[in-house]
Amino acid sequence: MLSFAVLGASTALLAGASAPAGANGVVRPRAAVLLAEAAATTDEQKASGISWDSHQYVDQAPESLIRDDDLQGANQDMRRRFEENCRRAQNAICKAVSELDGAEFREDVWTRPGGGGGISRVLCNGNVFEKAGCSLSVVYGSMPQDALQSATSRGADRAKGYAPGERVPFFACGLSSVMHPRNPMAPTMHFNYRYFETDGGVWWFGGGSDITPAYLFEEDIAHFHQTYKDVCDTHDPEYYARFKKWADEYFTIKHRGETRGLGGIFFDDQNDRDPEAIFAFSKECLDSVVPAYLPLVAKHKDDSFTQQQKEWQLMRRGRYVEFNLVYDRGTVFGLKTGGRIESILMSLPETARWEYSHEPAAGSPEAEIMDAFKTPREWAK
Amino acid sequence: MLSFAVLGASTALLAGASAPAGANGVVRPRAAVLLAEAAATTDEQKASGISWDSHQYVDQAPESLIRDDDLQGANQDMRRRFEENCRRAQNAICKAVSELDGAEFREDVWTRPGGGGGISRVLCNGNVFEKAGCSLSVVYGSMPQDALQSATSRGADRAKGYAPGERVPFFACGLSSVMHPRNPMAPTMHFNYRYFETDGGVWWFGGGSDITPAYLFEEDIAHFHQTYKDVCDTHDPEYYARFKKWADEYFTIKHRGETRGLGGIFFDDQNDRDPEAIFAFSKECLDSVVPAYLPLVAKHKDDSFTQQQKEWQLMRRGRYVEFNLVYDRGTVFGLKTGGRIESILMSLPETARWEYSHEPAAGSPEAEIMDAFKTPREWAK
Repeated sequence: MLSFAVLGASTALLAGASAPAGANGVVRPRAAVLLAEAAATTDEQKASGISWDSHQYVDQAPESLIRDDDLQGANQDMRRRFEENCRRAQNAICKAVSELDGAEFREDVWTRPGGGGGISRVLCNGNVFEKAGCSLSVVYGSMPQDALQSATSRGADRAKGYAPGERVPFFACGLSSVMHPRNPMAPTMHFNYRYFETDGGVWWFGGGSDITPAYLFEEDIAHFHQTYKDVCDTHDPEYYARFKKWADEYFTIKHRGETRGLGGIFFDDQNDRDPEAIFAFSKECLDSVVPAYLPLVAKHKDDSFTQQQKEWQLMRRGRYVEFNLVYDRGTVFGLKTGGRIESILMSLPETARWEYSHEPAAGSPEAEIMDAFKTPREWAK
Repeated sequence: MLSFAVLGASTALLAGASAPAGANGVVRPRAAVLLAEAAATTDEQKASGISWDSHQYVDQAPESLIRDDDLQGANQDMRRRFEENCRRAQNAICKAVSELDGAEFREDVWTRPGGGGGISRVLCNGNVFEKAGCSLSVVYGSMPQDALQSATSRGADRAKGYAPGERVPFFACGLSSVMHPRNPMAPTMHFNYRYFETDGGVWWFGGGSDITPAYLFEEDIAHFHQTYKDVCDTHDPEYYARFKKWADEYFTIKHRGETRGLGGIFFDDQNDRDPEAIFAFSKECLDSVVPAYLPLVAKHKDDSFTQQQKEWQLMRRGRYVEFNLVYDRGTVFGLKTGGRIESILMSLPETARWEYSHEPAAGSPEAEIMDAFKTPREWAK
């Protein structure tokens, strides 16, 4: 199971822990205090070394969450620069979202005695956003080899340097986000960018950005996809086609025969070239979140809408819940291994709706976007 | 996976298919018409023989959905009487609910060419109930032996008469229900009673009723449990203690370290005595649904409540969604094997809510019921 988490796409992937809200509803970063989490630690959790029952909540994040390792083969420089870039992007994205919304993000910071930690930021009950989360996580853990191998065609390679059956220690750093606007005309967006290394010196990058509207404004979706295609094209002419298809496949709600939204890009296992080149690509993807997404929210945040349109949005939020709880690798892994629930489920919308046998009227805007969910389209030029 | 479905507790367990709503929102049983369902048939589905892509929607249910088999070892008489009893109970329960609510159930009836079928009844957007579903299903399918065996300590016995690796044909009949009232002071209730036979002549009964309040009225929960304890006690002095514990364990949201609700009874694999005795027990459990549950809804349906109390109910509905999508055996099985989604997810509430790091204030009614979700109590005398 662990492989799914560390190779998955979820915001839960590297979900940081955060302090529970106080009884008075006022929440602020707390003085450093070691909390024993209520949730039981599972065997898999114990074995992985990423148990969640020993967080230290801290007032302020240390300059780096990366350990000072002198591990042979570890790319300490890349680890630090990847984290640095995630933190820079987290600041920039949260600042832009907060400026658009008018409300502030709540921040929860934590470290773990064994190394690593996280910075969770969540904007709840905003003016523009129902819920917006953006979380950095740095994890030192270990994976069973079969998990490593079942998750990728290059699995055997990833276990390099370890005896059969031996768990493989790894490092992971990532930034994850889901943003749910209030207005049903404004789309939801998710991204996750991550970097992995095993202590055996195998490394790879993963990531993606995808968009989930309730109503279809073709030019908006074209803008989102085109932004990412442009980034892809400057790095590899084959990237966009591959990663767009990968997103359409990954974000499928199989039991519905429909996609969660209208895709974007998704990639994993990337280690086929100079890590600097992939890092540069990953960096530009992260820098494109704001220009790809926020203009669409700004454009629609004050659109008028009916109660019926709001309910359709909530039904699509229901589909989001179905995808995340049933298929999302990081979420499912996190729940099964006792991860810190509020951080894992930060991705869920504030409200979701299920109506029995709801079918949009033929020719309606709801039926129109369902077509696009049933049959992925090309959006970029 | 299949074993989980056929041994599980969900309303999805034997989810019947139903006709999609028309564009005008008006829905009625349709003339018999063979529909090719949009969802793809999975390999597991094909192998099991319970593929969902060949329903015949019919205007009226035939007198029985049981096939005329002259299978050696099949207890045709029990099959028919179990179905008959389910249909009688479905009528009685829906009538009582409808009388309390004032709204009608929508009915969808279907048969399958290979035998079996279902009668789904759903009351949507009622006066008292947000959503109430009650579905009969009769299934002829086949299970892999390892599924049979992994699901029970008596698995080997269940595969009796079949060569290793051979799929085991089975018959199943069950009645399932979930009812979500509007008023946050009125509890949600779920039940499922089922009878299984393999073609090898192995049979067993399963079932249960459980209650899920958002606010704790101790006398209500005591009434619900006492009703079932009284039924249990007339059949076996050990039943209630065993089946109450089984419910507390089964209906646990493991990643939260809390139960979905306040339990009731849950049993499976029951074949340790005369089938007539277990049938009689199962029958009385079904007959106790109305007296155990409806008085609690009648009592609270007009209670005054605040917006904050409604939101707490919706957060508990969110937990219901988490349980059903992540843990409920029948739901998870149904989704993975391409079962008819609207019937499987009939159990989900109309609306659910997730607030980041919500914690009830110490000493509040919300904190009080959380204690009961964290530590199951004894309710009956």
